Amino acid sequence: MAIGEVTPFGQNARKRGSAEEGAGEKFSTYFFLVFQILMVVAFGLFAEYGVAVHPDKAVDNGASVEEIYPLYQDVHIMVFVGFGFLMTFLYKYAWSSVSFTLMIGAFCIQWGILCVSFWDKLFKNRDEEALDVKIEMNLGVLVEGDFSAAAVLISMGAVLGKLSPMQLMFMALFEIIIYALNRAILVDELLVSDVGGSMVIHTFGAYFGLAVAFWARPTNQKERLSEAKSSYNSDNFAMIGTLFLWCYWPSFNSALAGNSANTRQRVIVNTVFSLATCGFTTFLMSRIFRKGKLSMVDVQNATLAGGVAIGACANMNTNIWGAMTLGGLGAIVSCFGYAKLQGILESKLGLHDTCGVHNLHGMPGVLSAIASFIFALTASEKDYSAAGIQQVFPSLNGDSPSDFDATDAGLRQLYSLACTLAFALVGGTMTGLIIRAFSRFTKQQTLFDDEESFEKED
Amino acid sequence: MAIGEVTPFGQNARKRGSAEEGAGEKFSTYFFLVFQILMVVAFGLFAEYGVAVHPDKAVDNGASVEEIYPLYQDVHIMVFVGFGFLMTFLYKYAWSSVSFTLMIGAFCIQWGILCVSFWDKLFKNRDEEALDVKIEMNLGVLVEGDFSAAAVLISMGAVLGKLSPMQLMFMALFEIIIYALNRAILVDELLVSDVGGSMVIHTFGAYFGLAVAFWARPTNQKERLSEAKSSYNSDNFAMIGTLFLWCYWPSFNSALAGNSANTRQRVIVNTVFSLATCGFTTFLMSRIFRKGKLSMVDVQNATLAGGVAIGACANMNTNIWGAMTLGGLGAIVSCFGYAKLQGILESKLGLHDTCGVHNLHGMPGVLSAIASFIFALTASEKDYSAAGIQQVFPSLNGDSPSDFDATDAGLRQLYSLACTLAFALVGGTMTGLIIRAFSRFTKQQTLFDDEESFEKED
Amino acid sequence: MAIGEVTPFGQNARKRGSAEEGAGEKFSTYFFLVFQILMVVAFGLFAEYGVAVHPDKAVDNGASVEEIYPLYQDVHIMVFVGFGFLMTFLYKYAWSSVSFTLMIGAFCIQWGILCVSFWDKLFKNRDEEALDVKIEMNLGVLVEGDFSAAAVLISMGAVLGKLSPMQLMFMALFEIIIYALNRAILVDELLVSDVGGSMVIHTFGAYFGLAVAFWARPTNQKERLSEAKSSYNSDNFAMIGTLFLWCYWPSFNSALAGNSANTRQRVIVNTVFSLATCGFTTFLMSRIFRKGKLSMVDVQNATLAGGVAIGACANMNTNIWGAMTLGGLGAIVSCFGYAKLQGILESKLGLHDTCGVHNLHGMPGVLSAIASFIFALTASEKDYSAAGIQQVFPSLNGDSPSDFDATDAGLRQLYSLACTLAFALVGGTMTGLIIRAFSRFTKQQTLFDDEESFEKED
Repeated sequence: MAIGEVTPFGQNARKRGSAEEGAGEKFSTYFFLVFQILMVVAFGLFAEYGVAVHPDKAVDNGASVEEIYPLYQDVHIMVFVGFGFLMTFLYKYAWSSVSFTLMIGAFCIQWGILCVSFWDKLFKNRDEEALDVKIEMNLGVLVEGDFSAAAVLISMGAVLGKLSPMQLMFMALFEIIIYALNRAILVDELLVSDVGGSMVIHTFGAYFGLAVAFWARPTNQKERLSEAKSSYNSDNFAMIGTLFLWCYWPSFNSALAGNSANTRQRVIVNTVFSLATCGFTTFLMSRIFRKGKLSMVDVQNATLAGGVAIGACANMNTNIWGAMTLGGLGAIVSCFGYAKLQGILESKLGLHDTCGVHNLHGMPGVLSAIASFIFALTASEKDYSAAGIQQVFPSLNGDSPSDFDATDAGLRQLYSLACTLAFALVGGTMTGLIIRAFSRFTKQQTLFDDEESFEKED
Repeated sequence: MAIGEVTPFGQNARKRGSAEEGAGEKFSTYFFLVFQILMVVAFGLFAEYGVAVHPDKAVDNGASVEEIYPLYQDVHIMVFVGFGFLMTFLYKYAWSSVSFTLMIGAFCIQWGILCVSFWDKLFKNRDEEALDVKIEMNLGVLVEGDFSAAAVLISMGAVLGKLSPMQLMFMALFEIIIYALNRAILVDELLVSDVGGSMVIHTFGAYFGLAVAFWARPTNQKERLSEAKSSYNSDNFAMIGTLFLWCYWPSFNSALAGNSANTRQRVIVNTVFSLATCGFTTFLMSRIFRKGKLSMVDVQNATLAGGVAIGACANMNTNIWGAMTLGGLGAIVSCFGYAKLQGILESKLGLHDTCGVHNLHGMPGVLSAIASFIFALTASEKDYSAAGIQQVFPSLNGDSPSDFDATDAGLRQLYSLACTLAFALVGGTMTGLIIRAFSRFTKQQTLFDDEESFEKED
Repeated sequence: MAIGEVTPFGQNARKRGSAEEGAGEKFSTYFFLVFQILMVVAFGLFAEYGVAVHPDKAVDNGASVEEIYPLYQDVHIMVFVGFGFLMTFLYKYAWSSVSFTLMIGAFCIQWGILCVSFWDKLFKNRDEEALDVKIEMNLGVLVEGDFSAAAVLISMGAVLGKLSPMQLMFMALFEIIIYALNRAILVDELLVSDVGGSMVIHTFGAYFGLAVAFWARPTNQKERLSEAKSSYNSDNFAMIGTLFLWCYWPSFNSALAGNSANTRQRVIVNTVFSLATCGFTTFLMSRIFRKGKLSMVDVQNATLAGGVAIGACANMNTNIWGAMTLGGLGAIVSCFGYAKLQGILESKLGLHDTCGVHNLHGMPGVLSAIASFIFALTASEKDYSAAGIQQVFPSLNGDSPSDFDATDAGLRQLYSLACTLAFALVGGTMTGLIIRAFSRFTKQQTLFDDEESFEKED
């Protein structure tokens, strides 16, 4: 079937369109079935149990379960229950929201681990032999899998209800590759300090998704937008997502923080205070922006901005008041986004952002990057122990702590932000254009509606 | 605006009332915005990273994360998901229930830590210089923050649907001060043994809330009570709260239990058995009190009474059967409260207790205090190790374990109960009267209804 | 009241039936109240705090809390929130689903610990004196209590909506005895390797429940089956159960895995990969079996089959690809069951399986047993360390690791499967027949409907 083929008659076009689409849907299903099998083969060829997992390794690493597993499980709940239910606010699209979260999350754990490990090894070693070393599987790698899924699910928030399940799958397929490349550049090359992934995950995921939402928007989007609404119960379901995200966010930021120099506990304390301030400030800001009333949109989303806003600086010596200030700023930026900016972007640019990921992940992510630039710039060895400065600023890269160059550390944060925005916008644009090009083969007909994808009991 | 000013005409009064109220609402929003900023300043002046948090402290306390953090997260979920959803049973007030739980919880974490630390330092050291020592922030302090929030949220259960969001905020503001004072007297002065906070948190929160509910009741309460009902779905949402509270309660009781002499594991085992017996007994009692049928009110609430009933004795040598007996008694007391007593209190005293906190937190809390009196009275060094008796009974206060005075330890439990009841009832009455006095400036017009506080999508 | 007595007139029979049933309901309530009291007495006589729990034991076992407690809490959430909400998909039976889960779970924790400990001691020691040694209570024993509850709740899935609450209780009462006997034979006698309980818990629970569902089916089942359906919101509630089960399943499989030779972390890694593959494959299979659409039944259930399928081999050296393959097979088998087989069993055998436990627990459990046979058969000491082979294969039973007999280890898996199927089917049949015989005294009149058991607010 030739893409872009001219069809003279609307009706025929539509009919043929459906035939093509039927074929496209079927093809996609079997394509991903083969892809799943290939991933099993890839794990067979390129992965093995790590030293803390293999029954043959003499090392007994039970301790690492106690250290990481509870945090991993919290992250797991955030990704699947948190993101899943947060998106159920659409009153006719709740099945899709939770189901596609599970579908994409389960896919991304596998594909994310493969891609992250691939780029990571390539950038770390810069020789082809490095690729021969197998991926050592352990709990830390599983966390990386969930982080990949989080980035894609954030992007999904921007296009929610507007792309078909298979379009979402292709988005995930491409996004993971670019996500993992950007991550490798930031982590292995720019030596960024981004313990909570505010740049690597949140900023990237948000702007990637916005670019896809812009370029791959359905032609009937405008007349269907009134369907993108919530109901009384759907807003209650969404609060399940909000509350688990809010409570477990400290685990997200600290899962890969490491333990030396009290780092993990500092990340937890900073994140809790940022979220508490953000949570309370959101209620005040919502009343201020909404003429004395509260909006469930703000309550569901802006309360979480503190987790993103502290992300890149959560292990830094921000002090309690610094963490609280960032949380408060996160709430203000996010509430402003939901109450004012989002409508402007929609009416002026035609950019429809279903879940408002720009307000929850995009702007707070940029805020966090800028804050981390300031905290790095003003850091000095005396505020940290030798171990502390080494753990918090990878830019030191093995040098003596007394050689710590705060300007260099700060600038790396800005370069990383710029790199992330570039990869997200360019990658998202390319992905969006591809999805649009193939929209004949699979697309969502009735937006914001489960009916198209699900069997309904009568 | 003069309070109590006579207004001759109903209509004018109402109109002026709304004008005043509009001003009161606006004032409250900005008042709490300033208050939030002042809390940031206070944390800047009076708090610092603790030894297990600061990057500059040489100590590496990763272990404390493994020891406390999973328990802390369970408590976090109980406070925000548990209490939040438990209160969604009101079919038109679910948004308010979960949202205000988040608003008040986020506020109380901050304000609670400040107040608890303030009174604690004052009572522990009894000199002004003690106040110059900064609050050392760590996971244990965060748990104290969540405990403060729990006390206020229990009180909120008694007034749910009847106070406006800003009235709730002022209640929280005052309650935390009195809660922290009562806590300091019990912990630092009376040397109470109350590992699960049955007195400090549950009894205090319940009777404080009941006093507020009595004194600050809206004038139109009686004719609106028929709105305080549940629907099929709202009862399902409430079960989310119930089940998380039921499952995680052992973490609540053990979060600050300490590890020596097996204390934490004993608290967990006792609480699980108390809850299992209570959970099952509730179903039987509900059928007995309700003519063979079950009531969702009992299922949602009385099943949890075992967690409160074992609270003050959870670290004591109660034996499994002792814990089970307490759980069973908790179920009986609580079911009796929901099925019989609550209606009597309402019709005879005009005391409307929306969530029945008297049945879930009040009476089981008193039961726990009395049980702890008996278990302390019969305790002896030979039932405990030297380390055990020191950890369980702070009344020993550094004396040799062989000097343990069971009568003294027991009486301290009773004094603590009396002190808690006095502070709760007097503090709640004062707070209720203040709220009533200012009800012109902010009050709930349409009870048990989200519409007044939230924007609704059309 | 004579059972089977002939009653000439329908109406009289019905009237008398209700009188008998009223008496039966009342009797059952008080019977279980006495039973609860007897369980308290039994724990008083036969149980005591274990060495890690008693305040008098010098040993300080705080570490065991960090090692097991987070896993135990995840299992707790799976049993009460997971199973409870998974079964709320019935749109008029959601209250019953979550409530009876709590009722039965709370009962089974107690009764399960007593029965498991009883048979365990009898089989381990084979002398009567062994029974004089008290049950040592600790976190591991609590996990056993939750596992017993899980088996019964799986069976409940097969009969959901068709048995009255008291019939369910009697089923639980008998099932636990047989469950604990089968478990003791497998664990203590056949020395099975079944770390995740795929045979002990899932296969047993499923086939026991199916037998009960077959023999104790209500006479009016056929005409009421149209009521066994879901609604839009009830399917959303069910997804709460699904997602918590999906996320926490690695904790279920690893809770009693032990730490030596990296066992626990290997179980976690294997289970995560099995579930990820299963989760994604389910979406593809659902589209293939359901003509391009997804079914919420598949999404809610088949996504979890990977947790069961890997269960018996989760600690074995399956490699990542092996775990993934098992997960994928689990999805295929389970989707096939839901889409095709279940309807056939219903129309051909009259076997109605409300939640499709045969597809989620039955067939994947058998699959896991067969897979574990293969993995055991091909195991050798060189794939494991000495410690590893001893932890994974109890059949070694203290012998030197070099004496490991793979054929013996493999066959024990098959014997265990056969034993489990026999006990489940015979035990379930007996229990079903007893329930049917006494159905005059208590039975469900209006199937799949909460109204009969619950007070409704008007």
